[in-house]
Amino acid sequence: MKEKKDKPVKKPWGGRFKDEMSPSAERFTSSVQFDQRLYKEDIIGSMAFAKSLHKVGVLSTKEAKSLLKGLQEIFKDIEQGKVKFKKELEDIHMNVEHLLVEKIGDVAKKLHTGRSRNDQVTTDLRMYLKNEIAETINLITKFQIALLDIADKNIKVVMPGYTHMQRAQPVLFSHHIMAYFEMLQRDKERFSQTYSRTDHLPLGSAALSGTSFRIDREALAKELGFHEVTLNSIDAVADRDYVIDYLSAASIFMMHISRLSEELVIWSTYEFGFIEIADAYATGSSIMPQKKNPDIAELARGKTGRVYGNLIALLTIMKGLPLAYNRDVQEDKERLFDTVDTVKSVLFIFEEMVKSIKINADVMKEGAHKGFLTATDLAYYLVRKNVPFRDAHEIVGKIIAYCEDSNMQLDYISIPELRKFSDKFSFDAQTVISVENSIKTKDLIGGTAPDRVSEAIKQGRKKLLKELKG
Amino acid sequence: MKEKKDKPVKKPWGGRFKDEMSPSAERFTSSVQFDQRLYKEDIIGSMAFAKSLHKVGVLSTKEAKSLLKGLQEIFKDIEQGKVKFKKELEDIHMNVEHLLVEKIGDVAKKLHTGRSRNDQVTTDLRMYLKNEIAETINLITKFQIALLDIADKNIKVVMPGYTHMQRAQPVLFSHHIMAYFEMLQRDKERFSQTYSRTDHLPLGSAALSGTSFRIDREALAKELGFHEVTLNSIDAVADRDYVIDYLSAASIFMMHISRLSEELVIWSTYEFGFIEIADAYATGSSIMPQKKNPDIAELARGKTGRVYGNLIALLTIMKGLPLAYNRDVQEDKERLFDTVDTVKSVLFIFEEMVKSIKINADVMKEGAHKGFLTATDLAYYLVRKNVPFRDAHEIVGKIIAYCEDSNMQLDYISIPELRKFSDKFSFDAQTVISVENSIKTKDLIGGTAPDRVSEAIKQGRKKLLKELKG
Amino acid sequence: MKEKKDKPVKKPWGGRFKDEMSPSAERFTSSVQFDQRLYKEDIIGSMAFAKSLHKVGVLSTKEAKSLLKGLQEIFKDIEQGKVKFKKELEDIHMNVEHLLVEKIGDVAKKLHTGRSRNDQVTTDLRMYLKNEIAETINLITKFQIALLDIADKNIKVVMPGYTHMQRAQPVLFSHHIMAYFEMLQRDKERFSQTYSRTDHLPLGSAALSGTSFRIDREALAKELGFHEVTLNSIDAVADRDYVIDYLSAASIFMMHISRLSEELVIWSTYEFGFIEIADAYATGSSIMPQKKNPDIAELARGKTGRVYGNLIALLTIMKGLPLAYNRDVQEDKERLFDTVDTVKSVLFIFEEMVKSIKINADVMKEGAHKGFLTATDLAYYLVRKNVPFRDAHEIVGKIIAYCEDSNMQLDYISIPELRKFSDKFSFDAQTVISVENSIKTKDLIGGTAPDRVSEAIKQGRKKLLKELKG
Amino acid sequence: MKEKKDKPVKKPWGGRFKDEMSPSAERFTSSVQFDQRLYKEDIIGSMAFAKSLHKVGVLSTKEAKSLLKGLQEIFKDIEQGKVKFKKELEDIHMNVEHLLVEKIGDVAKKLHTGRSRNDQVTTDLRMYLKNEIAETINLITKFQIALLDIADKNIKVVMPGYTHMQRAQPVLFSHHIMAYFEMLQRDKERFSQTYSRTDHLPLGSAALSGTSFRIDREALAKELGFHEVTLNSIDAVADRDYVIDYLSAASIFMMHISRLSEELVIWSTYEFGFIEIADAYATGSSIMPQKKNPDIAELARGKTGRVYGNLIALLTIMKGLPLAYNRDVQEDKERLFDTVDTVKSVLFIFEEMVKSIKINADVMKEGAHKGFLTATDLAYYLVRKNVPFRDAHEIVGKIIAYCEDSNMQLDYISIPELRKFSDKFSFDAQTVISVENSIKTKDLIGGTAPDRVSEAIKQGRKKLLKELKG
Repeated sequence: MKEKKDKPVKKPWGGRFKDEMSPSAERFTSSVQFDQRLYKEDIIGSMAFAKSLHKVGVLSTKEAKSLLKGLQEIFKDIEQGKVKFKKELEDIHMNVEHLLVEKIGDVAKKLHTGRSRNDQVTTDLRMYLKNEIAETINLITKFQIALLDIADKNIKVVMPGYTHMQRAQPVLFSHHIMAYFEMLQRDKERFSQTYSRTDHLPLGSAALSGTSFRIDREALAKELGFHEVTLNSIDAVADRDYVIDYLSAASIFMMHISRLSEELVIWSTYEFGFIEIADAYATGSSIMPQKKNPDIAELARGKTGRVYGNLIALLTIMKGLPLAYNRDVQEDKERLFDTVDTVKSVLFIFEEMVKSIKINADVMKEGAHKGFLTATDLAYYLVRKNVPFRDAHEIVGKIIAYCEDSNMQLDYISIPELRKFSDKFSFDAQTVISVENSIKTKDLIGGTAPDRVSEAIKQGRKKLLKELKG
Repeated sequence: MKEKKDKPVKKPWGGRFKDEMSPSAERFTSSVQFDQRLYKEDIIGSMAFAKSLHKVGVLSTKEAKSLLKGLQEIFKDIEQGKVKFKKELEDIHMNVEHLLVEKIGDVAKKLHTGRSRNDQVTTDLRMYLKNEIAETINLITKFQIALLDIADKNIKVVMPGYTHMQRAQPVLFSHHIMAYFEMLQRDKERFSQTYSRTDHLPLGSAALSGTSFRIDREALAKELGFHEVTLNSIDAVADRDYVIDYLSAASIFMMHISRLSEELVIWSTYEFGFIEIADAYATGSSIMPQKKNPDIAELARGKTGRVYGNLIALLTIMKGLPLAYNRDVQEDKERLFDTVDTVKSVLFIFEEMVKSIKINADVMKEGAHKGFLTATDLAYYLVRKNVPFRDAHEIVGKIIAYCEDSNMQLDYISIPELRKFSDKFSFDAQTVISVENSIKTKDLIGGTAPDRVSEAIKQGRKKLLKELKG
Repeated sequence: MKEKKDKPVKKPWGGRFKDEMSPSAERFTSSVQFDQRLYKEDIIGSMAFAKSLHKVGVLSTKEAKSLLKGLQEIFKDIEQGKVKFKKELEDIHMNVEHLLVEKIGDVAKKLHTGRSRNDQVTTDLRMYLKNEIAETINLITKFQIALLDIADKNIKVVMPGYTHMQRAQPVLFSHHIMAYFEMLQRDKERFSQTYSRTDHLPLGSAALSGTSFRIDREALAKELGFHEVTLNSIDAVADRDYVIDYLSAASIFMMHISRLSEELVIWSTYEFGFIEIADAYATGSSIMPQKKNPDIAELARGKTGRVYGNLIALLTIMKGLPLAYNRDVQEDKERLFDTVDTVKSVLFIFEEMVKSIKINADVMKEGAHKGFLTATDLAYYLVRKNVPFRDAHEIVGKIIAYCEDSNMQLDYISIPELRKFSDKFSFDAQTVISVENSIKTKDLIGGTAPDRVSEAIKQGRKKLLKELKG
Repeated sequence: MKEKKDKPVKKPWGGRFKDEMSPSAERFTSSVQFDQRLYKEDIIGSMAFAKSLHKVGVLSTKEAKSLLKGLQEIFKDIEQGKVKFKKELEDIHMNVEHLLVEKIGDVAKKLHTGRSRNDQVTTDLRMYLKNEIAETINLITKFQIALLDIADKNIKVVMPGYTHMQRAQPVLFSHHIMAYFEMLQRDKERFSQTYSRTDHLPLGSAALSGTSFRIDREALAKELGFHEVTLNSIDAVADRDYVIDYLSAASIFMMHISRLSEELVIWSTYEFGFIEIADAYATGSSIMPQKKNPDIAELARGKTGRVYGNLIALLTIMKGLPLAYNRDVQEDKERLFDTVDTVKSVLFIFEEMVKSIKINADVMKEGAHKGFLTATDLAYYLVRKNVPFRDAHEIVGKIIAYCEDSNMQLDYISIPELRKFSDKFSFDAQTVISVENSIKTKDLIGGTAPDRVSEAIKQGRKKLLKELKG
């Protein structure tokens, strides 16, 4: 595709320059192709700034009204797809200013008084990110509700719990699902703390030293919905911590998603057979007619790398930059936008997809009965008969070896056989190695006993409700 | 160096195994060479756990006392360097248990009842990290005090402020220093939030499903100084978010340090000459007799990469791990320890080093006068005469071009010359382009006007005081 | 912008599926929005594959001709912008097949015989990457020629060489420039080795086990311009090493660019003043009329982070993936495309930009005379008089301290003064501390002596010529 | 542990310094605690350099002999553990020089003539790395031999091949193993190319501009076993590409290991049951007596993150560093050493461990028969009867759906049933869906047909033999 050549436009900063910028340099430095995403924030920010300029007398009432009206119209024009942004004007800020001059004439040239793109862009970006974080948190909550519903519906489903991917101890499937609820709860905390650190208004810092007009920054913050103002103008324009904060939170969130995805993929295998993903959320193969693949989980797992990459990109970009603003920082936006889009799209599709999953309770249950998952319970039986745990562990270890050699599951072993290993075993030994008993005895906060898990689900719902209200 | 071969030790988990572990596998999987750092936490955790076991009747009073006494003695032995840890026992946990058996006999074998290394290690690590975070925050505060002192002492020093490394506008040196105060303030907030997320006790989660003994986990948490207990046993043993949280906070902190380091290096160049680092914190060259190098700043800048690497290591390790515990996670400790050591050593040396720096106020001041740094102020002069800013910018741009061609600084231009560019210029134009005036007019929150900077320093001290008290 | 809803299209793999894919799942998994970039390679690959199918009798001559004609027409249609790709068809492969069915009817359904998207996509991607690497290498060569020209033109320019950013020893500016020539030479070697590893044809591996039709893969490779065929079908579809190879090479290349960029930024400062970047490749400030910023260098430095991020993304994506193909791998393309675009755009603009730089030879020269850069030469003077170097270093160190205290440059010190530090100093001592002498004595391979640098430039040109011919 | 305080040692570069270095700065900047690993290379390098100094007349024959003898003795002393390195002397270079002065007196002070630590350290590091790469390649070859042996021994074992972790098509287990052989072959190529780029001698570049003594660098290279000399002295001391090259190659290698590890872990699950890892290479659980965990594979998978982290560390460290040497670069060694140790330890243990694995051929074989793995072959049956592949795919898709609904494997379906879906099916249809036939038909280069796999193993052995000879 050929790019059409726009007519040369005078640079708004061109006074001291004798030669025009080379078109290749324009292409290389231009950001409007991606920062146009900030048009709304840019215009709202400019409107509030115009009011501030009016208050300090830089703009007359008439001028201010003209600016506000012009900006509103430009907003509408953009929304209606009437505007074609120009690369030669570099970025969304200069494009909007240029549109404004075209619309309302010379008064538009007053808008940028006492402001720099340095404080403008980070104000826009903070406004944008605040909205996105709020939305991200909402999407996480929705996803959590889906998980709670699954946990509720399958409260009686028993499955083998794993460590090292080896069957370890029986757990409730709902208990396993609630582990993800907890992770997501921490994710929201992180996003929410990032929100707070983003919620500081940098506008008024101008290029780096603060503006020369005594704008009331706190009033401006209120107008733009910011909770605080930044306290040092140099830091304000140099800082992108809030972007990295978001990327850090997003990376951990995606790591959680990758763990869930891995499990969904494994559980969907022929060998595990724990779940089946609905046709609507699976894909087939172009060559193998029998295939049904858990692509969404795989793709989400892959996107983890994408988000980690974006984090390392920003950390690298900011490393060793002298204060205050440097153009390197322009690279922040694409990486941030890409991450925001990834996180939201994953949340959106996962909430739908997990609801569609068919749980094969019988297969899970069978799994919990094979593989000596209650061996620890048998050891505890001995402990309760005053055998030191380490010895009990040793004894049961030998029993397991015996069972393996005899190709026998633990619940088929007879009491006389058990007594060959320790005379502490008595007729009640068989009770303790039942899967149900094993689960029931984990009866403390955080344990997998049915009552505890039900309580955890209930408390989970309460928390979400409280958050949604608060 | 040859490693001496210890006698084979029976594995505490060896019951079901028929063959001994290969020595090479022992070497590969052993962690005691680095996790011995956790001996204190491990012993304290075991002591509290023994009390819990006593309360639920697993240990008699006599047994509990014996265990507590034994553990205390082992603690002393280790502190006094009397203990040689064994690789064949894998980790600090099994080493301590083994020492205990040697010391107090079979009752020691009861200690591990209802506990797994899975919940034990993450309890130890959380205890360790909480201490280290608290110390890190203290060190940051000390470093901030050093910066406040520098800012206070040099409150009259004027310097050129930079964007794109080009002289931009005059600022107070103290204002520049206070930008770092703000960054460090955010760093502390991050570390402190990480502390809170670390402050949840996982003990009682056992292998993954919760322990079978009805231990009072909340009492245990209190005993061990934890604010909360984890709410899901599977999550509790699978989770290393708190480690990543720390590494994320440390990465941003190191990024800040790298920016300061870059500036110290640049300011120390012959060309800038803004500062001189004391002999005590500089190094020479093995070949060039004249060299005096800002090695500490350079090395700290380099260590940023180390910490970023540790972050990406942990994120990679955790990616796609199915629940609950997997051995991959053992790789968390070395990366965490390395980061903790790096962060603390940087803070320690920076606090000393910055205090030793000689500020060349005259050189900085001269820098603020050359390079047209008050051009914006001249444009604002026109703005105040009702010239739209964008036109004023253009006019002053042309004046700068004229000055450059005539090899003239801005303050040498005459009013008649100015008037060639705009008849709005009058006799008061020269006042606005003085460096002092430029600085003074940035008189709003976050601005570089002297009163504002003094106030910021004062407020900064107040905050630290409040934190230290709180 | 609203996305218009296309009519549902039957999935080419839909036979076993009962429910239609959810539109949100389609959106999430679709790749045609970015893999359409591979349309040319996809069609060329399909044409060659159709010929192979013809040779083994799967296609009649008539069928083969019809397929080839159809594919050619689709190619033209796409080139002429007549084609709208459909997300519901997932990717470029299924889109092309669908277009073919529309164009030539049922015979098109034979094209995918014995092929899978698994081997098809990696074939396309390898073809694409081979072209891009070849182009990248060409662009590097062009950039090197620009550097050689600068080195040639400024062969007499002396500058201070730096270590630790401190003036160290005088060097020729051309020698410094030639350091980058060497880095780029290694970059080309890396890219070229990546090319070789990319130059293996995977087609014929089908889904993972090899195709069932005895296609002559070596003939197919020849037809498609591949030097070798992959030797294991499972590896062939699972492997993305070549993408990571490219990203690794690109990361090191960008690191080199970041170092050059850093130097250009520093040299452009008011304080250094070594160079001036032409107006056509600099930008101004929206607020400060005097600013002229080296944005291109800054932006390129920032883009280093972007490329590092892409590398870590791919490494993360591939980590721990079981064989053979997994959908995670779909994430490779956007990261690769982004890197290719970044590398090429940087090379393109840098070649232009560096040619526009004005070298301030006088400023550089003056820099080489201030800062005791020939102190080592003075030490060597003593060495030649049989003073052990370490003692000579010590003596000259003291002379420097004396000069600094007296605020004196090294060439102003008198022989009597020198003799206060060592009686080995004689009347010829002053010669050795001239900048010219210092440079001249570095007369060995790789040294900065003028003849050596000229020779290096000459050899550099020879190498490029040989490469261009070969 | 308290660090004992050594007596202050005079810095070898201290001439111009008035104040002593602060002990904390010494601790922070010292590298001898880790770079002592280079003592051998440092001494060998110094010996060769002494000979060069002798040839150009800086050292008399007697002096040269004395130096060589002294250095040899120091080497012995270190080997015998007689030497305690001093932090105050910063690094291995200054420690060795200091030991030499102690041993042979003032003549030792001549050794550093015309050399800088800048060219010395990178010479040492290149020598070290060359040895390690050679060893790494050897270890990979040994590991490949182990894989070839496994492939040979199990040549008749059939297993299900997977894509998306879903059973896809039957393959030979040996074919699967040979996929890893191919990956390792590429790894060796990468390491070997890194070797070549490491094999350039930087010595003679001195601080940055080349040494002032006309040393014959090519002779020196020959003496030290380097194939080439570096061609630009500034680049020579600034460059760490070779370290990053190694880390890149190591990262891809570890990625391959992580994929194999993932498969070993999955295959070891109760559900898959494809393999059993020998007791000697597995570990148990401290709590669960039945557990046998594939810890080595898990740990190696985790170590992938560690190596990725080291790569990103170095890339970050080098980003944006101005030429020539900066102290940041000192951070290269620990990350490199850690990677070398990791790669070698993984190779060492994997070669042992994989040999110990028990292959459950029956389980694998059963797996290949369940899950419709020959559906594609059935589609190809139709293709051979002239049904367009896309239609054949659709028909077989419906057959699969039918089988699933009837809970039937593909080989149990009768011809009449098949004919309900297409009248092209005839009595020979059942042959094509046998696992054996499916495998046999993949009879082309890279395919899984038994003869092809045997040939691949044979060719693999040939290649290794050739490499070992070459």
